[in-house]
Parts: sequence; structure tokens; C-alpha cells
Amino acid sequence: MCNMEVMCIVSFGRYTRPKFNLVLLIILQLSLHTVEGVWPLPQSFTSSTERYPLNPKAFYFGYGRQSAAQQDCSVLDAAFKRYFSLIFPDYTSGYGVLRFSGDKPFTVEIRVDHADCDSYPNENSSERYNLSVSAGQASLNAETVWGALRGLETFSQLVYQDDFGTYFVNKTEIDDFPRFQFRGILLDTSRHYLPVQAILKTLDAMAYSKFNVFHWHIVDDPSFPYQSRTFPDLSSTGAFHPMTHIYTQSDVRRVISHARLWGIRVLPEFDSPGHTQSWGKGQSDLLTPCYRGSTPSGTFGPVNPVLPSTYQFMARLFKEVSSVFPDSYIHLGGDEVDFSCWKSNPDVRAFMQKMGFGGDFTKLEAFYMEKIVNITSALKKTSIVWQDVFDYHERIPKDTVLHIWKGTPASYKEELSRMTKAGMRVLLAAPWYINHIAYGQDWRNYYTVQPLNFSGTEEQKKLVIGGEVCMWGEYVDATNLTPRLWPRASAAAERLWSDEKQTSSVDEAFPRLQDFRCKLVRRGIRAEPLHVGHCKHEYQGV
Amino acid sequence: MCNMEVMCIVSFGRYTRPKFNLVLLIILQLSLHTVEGVWPLPQSFTSSTERYPLNPKAFYFGYGRQSAAQQDCSVLDAAFKRYFSLIFPDYTSGYGVLRFSGDKPFTVEIRVDHADCDSYPNENSSERYNLSVSAGQASLNAETVWGALRGLETFSQLVYQDDFGTYFVNKTEIDDFPRFQFRGILLDTSRHYLPVQAILKTLDAMAYSKFNVFHWHIVDDPSFPYQSRTFPDLSSTGAFHPMTHIYTQSDVRRVISHARLWGIRVLPEFDSPGHTQSWGKGQSDLLTPCYRGSTPSGTFGPVNPVLPSTYQFMARLFKEVSSVFPDSYIHLGGDEVDFSCWKSNPDVRAFMQKMGFGGDFTKLEAFYMEKIVNITSALKKTSIVWQDVFDYHERIPKDTVLHIWKGTPASYKEELSRMTKAGMRVLLAAPWYINHIAYGQDWRNYYTVQPLNFSGTEEQKKLVIGGEVCMWGEYVDATNLTPRLWPRASAAAERLWSDEKQTSSVDEAFPRLQDFRCKLVRRGIRAEPLHVGHCKHEYQGV
Repeated sequence: MCNMEVMCIVSFGRYTRPKFNLVLLIILQLSLHTVEGVWPLPQSFTSSTERYPLNPKAFYFGYGRQSAAQQDCSVLDAAFKRYFSLIFPDYTSGYGVLRFSGDKPFTVEIRVDHADCDSYPNENSSERYNLSVSAGQASLNAETVWGALRGLETFSQLVYQDDFGTYFVNKTEIDDFPRFQFRGILLDTSRHYLPVQAILKTLDAMAYSKFNVFHWHIVDDPSFPYQSRTFPDLSSTGAFHPMTHIYTQSDVRRVISHARLWGIRVLPEFDSPGHTQSWGKGQSDLLTPCYRGSTPSGTFGPVNPVLPSTYQFMARLFKEVSSVFPDSYIHLGGDEVDFSCWKSNPDVRAFMQKMGFGGDFTKLEAFYMEKIVNITSALKKTSIVWQDVFDYHERIPKDTVLHIWKGTPASYKEELSRMTKAGMRVLLAAPWYINHIAYGQDWRNYYTVQPLNFSGTEEQKKLVIGGEVCMWGEYVDATNLTPRLWPRASAAAERLWSDEKQTSSVDEAFPRLQDFRCKLVRRGIRAEPLHVGHCKHEYQGV
Repeated sequence: MCNMEVMCIVSFGRYTRPKFNLVLLIILQLSLHTVEGVWPLPQSFTSSTERYPLNPKAFYFGYGRQSAAQQDCSVLDAAFKRYFSLIFPDYTSGYGVLRFSGDKPFTVEIRVDHADCDSYPNENSSERYNLSVSAGQASLNAETVWGALRGLETFSQLVYQDDFGTYFVNKTEIDDFPRFQFRGILLDTSRHYLPVQAILKTLDAMAYSKFNVFHWHIVDDPSFPYQSRTFPDLSSTGAFHPMTHIYTQSDVRRVISHARLWGIRVLPEFDSPGHTQSWGKGQSDLLTPCYRGSTPSGTFGPVNPVLPSTYQFMARLFKEVSSVFPDSYIHLGGDEVDFSCWKSNPDVRAFMQKMGFGGDFTKLEAFYMEKIVNITSALKKTSIVWQDVFDYHERIPKDTVLHIWKGTPASYKEELSRMTKAGMRVLLAAPWYINHIAYGQDWRNYYTVQPLNFSGTEEQKKLVIGGEVCMWGEYVDATNLTPRLWPRASAAAERLWSDEKQTSSVDEAFPRLQDFRCKLVRRGIRAEPLHVGHCKHEYQGV
């Protein structure tokens, strides 16, 4: 037995094929206890086989003398506690045999340039860090506390145990920073309600893969779980259950503060004018009454764009949302608007006439979205909208971010070109619809995406702010969320953080991702297996 | 809000389509608190809206005077304890508000014909039961304690709570029995090791769907976790890890006794001559040395069928296995034998000559399997073999059971005809390879299978002993086993237990299965959602 966290066996069994070769096994053995064992792969690193034993009884985190942040820095003090447990799982869980090789102390000294300990991470936060591990100490330097958090995660992944339970870390030099500044995961809490605990646990796992944005698709057609201060009826009548299936203001605060401690932004989405069936239950006259011939059918369509009351409602709702969610971005949706109900409604048709839109309902949607974007602009927030808005309407405020979710590689690359050509910033989700499960190693598809492989200038490429893994909720709730997300989402995480040239081989990534998956399992994350094999420490829960 | 365990919303969201209609919602509302709320659907039943409140403080299980089994019947005493907690989750968990409507006692009186309390369920065990629920009492009659267990499960599913937490059961008459005698689930503990706890939890969930056979595919190419008394080297060198990734004799006893208390048989599979790479590590000269030209290549193929030592080894191994596993069936595998290594080996070719097999290696495999089947016959065990053995070799002892795992509906129906025409008993697994996940409601495919819809006489149809859901382990371990199994396997469970005519509509099954899935979640089983919606009690773990 080697003392790797993961050992893999090539199986000849039913529907199984050898998926990697001896070369990779050798890479695995030689490298997994060095920086190559870090997921996502750091931008630049050197490491040696020189290793230092770590004794949890003589292991310390400290602030460097020149560090802007010192004792009582909320974000870092909390991180030190968390990472001590993550670095020494046996010690804290009391499990396993520990044999200390002497009691030499080891100190991780953190130095940050800005004492942004009580702020929130934002779109411009630097996550760059520099980590130097040598005898008796590691120096971790970063511009911000958020960068320091990424460095702590990297350090925690460098530590390993031998077969006797002794902890070691190898001599290492790392200079690291993210390739993309926006690395998100979308959770959908409308099609199924996710208990707050499930969201918090997901935030933990996100940080292990260095994701930095939680896109909270909090409401949609099926339910409205957000409990609004201004419009409490939205959840009391629009949620699956008015008491047990809602997010109270304190629930939301809890999610935001938990995310902050991991350096994760919380991006709320209140999708309109479509995907709003549940809104109609608690807010009369908000949705468009659909007509059968000359009489109302009793059913409702998208938000009614012709009533002034609609915009008064939205202004008040987004005023609340922008105060509850500190992030500078708000997601406004704007996707999949079904025009048939608008078409059926005489008032809407009359409005089209008046506005000179003719029969082009995309103009009406554009008119609506423009008004909503203006509301959020007035609130000093940056709007994100799904690509539909751009497809229907090239005239959008330049600082709006466009979110690509549709199509094949060919079509989303075309869309990337067109949007960036128009000077718009873009977020790519299309290749990472991770809710679409398939048999086998579909993580390979998420890994081999090349986000900047579209025709455009260097300036255009700079407009791609990042990517997002979407876990839509049709078939997902707290029972299966974690194994469906991990480690499949981690494949996208490396694509979004690491250098593409250094991570071009999916076969070389395979044993590294298997190793990382075992680290997740060791940390209590129900991350599913990639293929035949085992982890030194299997998941023990049921 | 209605007081159903499940409430469903038709979503218009991304990649979502309305999956059922108002009619079904009405069926759901009217019926889910009657026998229609029982999964799998009982064979014959009548129920009324007359309901009786149940008070956990005045609820009793008892043995009828004429019952052959009385106090201290191990199986039933244990079942009473389990089902009390399952019937009154709030009471035992202390969760929720209970408002008792009076303290009238309610007694479930069990009467069984045979006091088979300390035996094991077997292929001929009757599972028939009769349940009559009236004011103040329920009478449960069965031929065997195993039938009584099925009746207790049904009773537990009849009990529901109103919005105030009060428990009720409706007036009901049920006469029930399984359509098929063999209703199995296969778990693969070789491609990934499953901790014993995960197996025990699966046995619990199996009983909730009235599965009655746990097919333990315990060893295969990747690992040999079974710790043999006779050949300890098989696991000490063939398991993923000799200490942490094995099943000791006491682990196996624990699984068997836990299964017995649920009325579940444990069918061990020791698959050979193929799928035995891991065996070779602990047993030299067992596998066939492969040759490159005239010299051994260093790799090994299937079990070596030409050495007498092979059959001496197998005789000793199966002697142990047949004593450790009390069931009268043993699965011998026999699938997917790769002939290339046999072909390359000069000793094997010489043996072929001597036996007059010419170049037909299927004859060699048949020769091997016949010897193994004879070994188990001598041990008074019934052999099950995968279909390959029949395909290669029609001359098989008549009492052998053939296991169909290959092909499309067209091809496995053809196989069903041929095998039953030859007078062989058959077990159908092909349509229930549940490890093959797909996006969406693939449970519908498992539900709409018609196991007896093949061309053949009534006598032939009688030879189909049942079906099996296979969860092969390439991509499954304790992290994702439960949500991948449940409730998808439950769809097959109803097909194998219930009357096909009464359960012909998959759309009518949908709300019932959603309700059952919420019952599983309430019982702590991480059963994944079928579609958009919610459970009154969501899964709270992470």
C-alpha cells in the first residue's frame, strides 16, 4: 500500500474500461504530496521532497509584524480555527494514531496589505497570495484577507499524513492568483427548498475548490421562499409552506455572513418578468392576466409590463433586496419569457400600439428590462441578466453583465464573440449545467471547456469575467445536492482558477481530482467517486 | 395547504415540463391517506374515509391467542420496536406538537400460522398477509412471520398525521401477497467498498419497499473485501486495504442477522471464472497466466480451468461460503469471460485438444461452470448464474437459476422465451440496471417494465421467479448510494410486488411514489426527489 489518500484499480468489470495508465499512477505517487496535490492547481509553484513533520500541539497561526491585519481580525481569526481542524482531522476528531517526530514548533505567519477584516469580498477583491513553506514555518502574504483565505486553503491541502498518522508538509514555494475573477455556483431554492444547513455546507465545500460567488436563485415559478420585510405575503402565500419552507431575514443574514468568512460573495437573483408564477400568489395585479378570446382565462403570464404599479412594486422590492444583500451585483433574470399570454391580453396589445412596438414583443420585454435595470442602477448596483435580454435588445447599459446559459459550444462561443464585440462583460454558464447528469465521467466535459476559445480581440477576452456552475433544482434537494455537486463542480473550479496550459490534460487531472475528492470526503463532504477505487478514509455517514 | 406529505408544483422553468395533471392532484388528495398511499400497492384492498385517531401512549402490538408465534418471537418483538418508532416519528423524536383526541387504546394483533421466529426467510417463504383495520384495533394475519413483517410495513404506511400532529389510520381491509417470489437488490462491494453501516441502512430501506433479497456482489476484479477463514490471503492482499476495507466474519454475520430481522435473504455472489483479478493476488496459480507468443506476459486472465488445484480451491472456498451464508442460493457469476488469455496459454490449448473442444472456448467455460455448479450442488445449494452460461451451454442442471442482465427489451424477452422453453427458472435484471443514471424521470422506465410480456406458455411464465435491481459500483459508494437507489428502485419494487393491471398507469403512480419518497425521507433515508415539489418534512442532514 502507498500512503496516498487515494488508490485506484483498473477494473475489467461490467461497463468498465481502464481509464488511465501507469504513467498517471506514477505521477500520482510522486506528486500528490506536493503542490500537485492542490486543487485547483496553483499558477506558479516549486516544491521539493524535503518534508517537515507537523505536530498539532506545536502548530501556530500568527500575524506578521508588518501585516495590516492583526489579532481580532474577524475573518482570519475564524479561518485559523477552521483550518486547524481541517489540517489535523485526527487530532481534533481524536481518531487515529499520532506519532510525533519531535516537538519542533511550526508557525504559519500571515501578512496582508489591507486590514479589510470586516468588509465583504467584492468584484475587485484581489485573491492573489504567496506561500512559502520552509523548516519550522510558512509565510503567507496577500494583498487582502480574501487572498489569505485562498492561501490557507492551499496550505491545508499541502499537509498529509503517513501510514503512522504523522503529519507532514513539503518545502514549497507558491505564487498564486485566479485566472477569472468570478467563479460561481448557482443553487436553485425555488424548485426545491434547501434547508439553510445545506446551503452553509455547500459554501464550505465551495471554499475548498476556491469558488468565490454563491449565485442564489432564490425564487422562481414553483415557490417564493424569500421572506420579504416589505411584502411578507410573497412568501406566506408563495412559498411551499409559509413557516417551514422560507428563508427569514436572519436566515439570509446567516448565509451572507457564513459566506463572507469564506471570502464568498452572495449574488441574489430575483428573476422577472418570466419565472414569476409564485410571485402572483402574494401580489395581486403583478402578473399579466391571460385571455381566452375576449375573456380572462383565469391563468396568469409573466409580470405585467404595462401597469405603473408593477414598477412601483419592483422599485420597493429591489430597494429592500439591495439593502439585505451587500454585494454590488444583483441578478435580474430576464430569461425564457413566454409571449403568448402578453399577446392574448388586450391591455398589453393596446400598450404595444401606443409604444409603436408593432407586433414585436421582444421590444416589450426590452422595455421592461430596461426599466428594471434602471431601478437597480439607481440603487448603485450592477445588474446581471441572462443572455435572452441581449439577444432581444442590444441597447443595454454598458455596465450590465450578460450571463450565457444557452446552447452548444459552437453557439455559446458565437454569443461570446457578439457580446464582447458589443463591449459587454460576460459570465459563462452554458457548459456547466451540472444538474444535467449522465452516466460515466462527465466531469471531463466540464474540465475541457476553454472559456476564451472564441474569435475576438485580447480586449474582448478581457470582458469575460468568469464562469458559473449551475445546479438547477428540478431533481435536486438536500438529499442529493452534495454528491451531484462534488467533485463534478471542482472540475470547473480548476478551469476557472488555474492556468489553462498547465491544466490541459484531463488524464493528468484525473488522479489529482480523485485525490482531491478523497480530501473532500475526509472533510465530511459527500463527494461522489469518479471511478473505481477507494479513499483511505471512506465516507462513514449513511 | 393540504395535509399531504407531498405537494407538487408544475414548473415552467428551464428544462421543465408539466409532468402530471389536475386529475392526478385530485387522486393524490383523495387517496393518499388510504391504501393508495401504500407502496408497493397491495393486491386487494378496500378502505373508507372513516378514520381513527392513534395515541402513541395507548398504542400496542400484541400476539393473537391462536398465533403460533407468541411473546419472545425474536423477529416480531424486534419488528414491534422498530415499527413503533416508524409509525410515531414525532413521538419518539420528540419533534412537533401532538394533540391526542382522547385516550382510546389501539391494538395491532398479530396472528401467524408458523412460529418460524428463529429461522431464515427462504425461496419458499410465504409473504402473504391479511390486514383488517377497524375501530380500536387492527388484525394482522399471516402464514409466516415474514408475511407479518410485510403487513406491519403496510400498516405503518397507512398511518398519517393531520396538520396538528394527530395520528390517524383509516378503516381498511387488505389481502396482499407478492406477484414475484424473488425481489432483489444487488450491491457491488468490490468496485467500491461500502461500510457495513451503509449496507444495513440499505436493508432498512429495502424492507420499506418490500424487497426480500440482498444480492451481495461481494468480490470482483478491483478488490476482494470478504475475509475468508480458509484463505485469509484473499482479502489481506486482494482488498483495497487489509484492515479498513474488508468484511470480517462478524461483519458478514451482522449483515445476515440484520437482513433476517427484515425478512430479507442474503444471496452471496462469488463470480468466476472472469471478474477474478483481485483473487489472484492472494491465491497463486489460481488465474491463467497470459502469454505473449511463447513466453508468459506477466499478466493474468480468468481462473485457470485446466488445473485440478483450481477445483480443490473452489471446493474449499464454497464449502466455507455455504456455511457462512445460510441462504439456499449461491450466485456463481459466470459472466463476461474474456477468452484471449486462455487462447494465449499453451497448457490451456493443450487441454482443449485433449478434451476435444477444438477452438471453441465456450465449451471450456461450460466445462468449468459445470464443475463449479456440481461443487455447490454437493453442498445442497441452488446455483444462480449470469445468462452467459446458458448462452454458451444449454446443458445445465435443471435446478440452476439463470440471471438475465443483457440487452434491450426485445433481446431479453427473446432470452426469457428461450430459457423458460428449456424449462429453466429465470431471474430478470436487464431492465433494472439502476446504476445507469440519466437526467429526468428515468424511474418511469423501471416502472413500465412488463416481466412476463414475452412469448411463452403459462408454464413458461411461472418459471420467472422475479427480478433484481442492480447497482453496480463503478461510480457509487457510500457518498451517493442512497439517493441513487431511492426512490428509483422503489419503482421496480412495485412492479415486482403489485398486480400489473392495477399499476399500469405510470402517471397515476407518480404522485403515489412522490408521497412514498417523502415517507422515506421522513424515515431518514436520503431518497432523491422525482420532480419539482417539496415534502412536509424535508431531509435535514447535510
